[in-house]
Amino acid sequence: MQVLHMNKGNGDTSYAKNSTVQSKIISVGKPIMKEAVLEMLCNNVIESMGIADLGCSSGPNSLSVISEIMDTVEAANRLLGRRLVSEFRVFLNDLYSNDFNNIFMSLPAFYDRLKEEKGLEFESCFILGAPGSFYGRLFPINSLHFVHSSSSLHWLSQVPAGLESNALKRLNKGKLYISKSSPQSVVDAYLLQFRNDFSLFIKSRSRELVAGGRMVLSFMGRSSTDPTTENSCYQWELLAQAIMSLAREGRIEEEKLDSFNAPYYAPCAEEIKDEIQKEGSFTIDRLEAFEIDWDGGAVTDIHTPHGKLSVGRRVAKAIRAVVESMLESHFGVEPDVMDDLFIRYGDIVGTHLSKSRTKYINLVMALTKKW
Amino acid sequence: MQVLHMNKGNGDTSYAKNSTVQSKIISVGKPIMKEAVLEMLCNNVIESMGIADLGCSSGPNSLSVISEIMDTVEAANRLLGRRLVSEFRVFLNDLYSNDFNNIFMSLPAFYDRLKEEKGLEFESCFILGAPGSFYGRLFPINSLHFVHSSSSLHWLSQVPAGLESNALKRLNKGKLYISKSSPQSVVDAYLLQFRNDFSLFIKSRSRELVAGGRMVLSFMGRSSTDPTTENSCYQWELLAQAIMSLAREGRIEEEKLDSFNAPYYAPCAEEIKDEIQKEGSFTIDRLEAFEIDWDGGAVTDIHTPHGKLSVGRRVAKAIRAVVESMLESHFGVEPDVMDDLFIRYGDIVGTHLSKSRTKYINLVMALTKKW
Repeated sequence: MQVLHMNKGNGDTSYAKNSTVQSKIISVGKPIMKEAVLEMLCNNVIESMGIADLGCSSGPNSLSVISEIMDTVEAANRLLGRRLVSEFRVFLNDLYSNDFNNIFMSLPAFYDRLKEEKGLEFESCFILGAPGSFYGRLFPINSLHFVHSSSSLHWLSQVPAGLESNALKRLNKGKLYISKSSPQSVVDAYLLQFRNDFSLFIKSRSRELVAGGRMVLSFMGRSSTDPTTENSCYQWELLAQAIMSLAREGRIEEEKLDSFNAPYYAPCAEEIKDEIQKEGSFTIDRLEAFEIDWDGGAVTDIHTPHGKLSVGRRVAKAIRAVVESMLESHFGVEPDVMDDLFIRYGDIVGTHLSKSRTKYINLVMALTKKW
Repeated sequence: MQVLHMNKGNGDTSYAKNSTVQSKIISVGKPIMKEAVLEMLCNNVIESMGIADLGCSSGPNSLSVISEIMDTVEAANRLLGRRLVSEFRVFLNDLYSNDFNNIFMSLPAFYDRLKEEKGLEFESCFILGAPGSFYGRLFPINSLHFVHSSSSLHWLSQVPAGLESNALKRLNKGKLYISKSSPQSVVDAYLLQFRNDFSLFIKSRSRELVAGGRMVLSFMGRSSTDPTTENSCYQWELLAQAIMSLAREGRIEEEKLDSFNAPYYAPCAEEIKDEIQKEGSFTIDRLEAFEIDWDGGAVTDIHTPHGKLSVGRRVAKAIRAVVESMLESHFGVEPDVMDDLFIRYGDIVGTHLSKSRTKYINLVMALTKKW
């Protein structure tokens, strides 16, 4: 929780410059988000609408979601010929170490656009930063109407118990995440951590949302009940290969690879439904799975050497922008080793994808807080 | 508004490391703040207390005010043997370019301390960042109970009209602020800008505060009705001297000095009272003036050469941490010129203070929103 953050700033390895996949994921979830907003507006009178984006990160995606939600409300206003919501309270949440400065600097232009495009006065939209972990309470009771979270809930609150870097036994040697070769105890530890985290998430949001409030959650998952299925863990498998190849050359300690396990879990639909039903205060309106290209679906012919290289590099940069803070803190390597790691990773990914077009599975669900 | 921010980070010239004067100012205002909080608690039932610190900046002072307010509430709880406030909603406000990342990184330790010292669960205190200008609306109607602002309201929303760097005439040549030699038109322009800004501030807060809510405002002012009085403008007078001495050596363009006027105003009590009475929704409970040493009151014998030097340097660093972003944007000088400027300024300040112990006048006022 103290370590994970997307790469800051606007440079070449920044998250702001390498978040096309996450932007793609936001787009595929849009129809579900719009439907949820509209349904909520039909069934509720809302004076002051509380909206939270959980895991907003920084860069262009942070405000695009908010913009979409407000667009939907405005479209409904026009359709019905009256103002359904007179005030927006918008809360941008991420961990304490997120680059909030970057988001805040883009707010003046965002407010100007609101005024220009929607005729909204500054006084009707208040955007605030709400730093903290969403695995726990972030907002007062009954203060929110709509919660959105994209590309965030696959991050666990911590490395699963028993798999931490200081654990006595190395249960998952040579791997970074669940793998075909991982023992059952590793799989169990991951599932347990996911269950604990996700149920705390649901419980916390249940307190914060008004009755009739909605949530749209979008995150990495898997299509099979088997947690070792390729579409949920192969990006980690290949990253482990890249680290291992540097370890063989003595540039990274192999022990460091053995002692690292990513605080990540890609659940299947059943695992999610279980936790929501156990908690009991939400109904599931929708739960859909989407296939997402590892590079966000740019048009490149991967079967040319140049195409292979460029797809691989793009994927490597996208993953680097997300995991570098974690790797840096655990492996403690020099910048040039980090650079080499992701060059190597890009090559491995390019070669893999040219043979087998593995995709991410992104789950999108819409929930309603019961009356 | 886009330019002014305290120096970021934790380095030698950062605001975080050079904000002793502002910390001193917070201390002298404490009894008034405590009194206001206690009086409010006696007269209101507050479930969820909305607190805003306007112009929170970054560094150790940002959370110390919040801590003090919460301490006061807790002390009242103990005194009366019951919980007067069950939830705190805390809003930290500053301009968009403020270093919010720095504040947010210190929140986990702050929450830990709350839990340890006050037994407060995380769920009863929500700290949010509210970026934007306090010369305008920042929060929903009737959402706040207590507003605090320290060392911020002497900053105007802009350079007074007619004194901007692109104005046709240079009305205030060789000066940075109102000076004995400034023409009346300069004094008038400053007063007009202050009146416009301060009345907008009061009007905005009047919408945001509940009836019976309180404000404690603390800012630089002056003890005389004469706006050229030494205790309100001499720090600028000496800074202009330092810039002029670099201009004489051709290291800064003199035209740049002629075209710069600080967006700052140190009002007298009458000017403040006027605006509050005109707006009409607040009563003034207290309005006091405190003398503050330019170096925050460190114990140094200024009459030794070493003492003179060290006091001068301390003052120069404190001022630099506050005004550097503005000077940088206007003068566009190299870092070494900026360094030299503040070395020279330190010398001039040391020499001045060894002869005449000029002090700042800090005004502290407590206001109640009428029923």
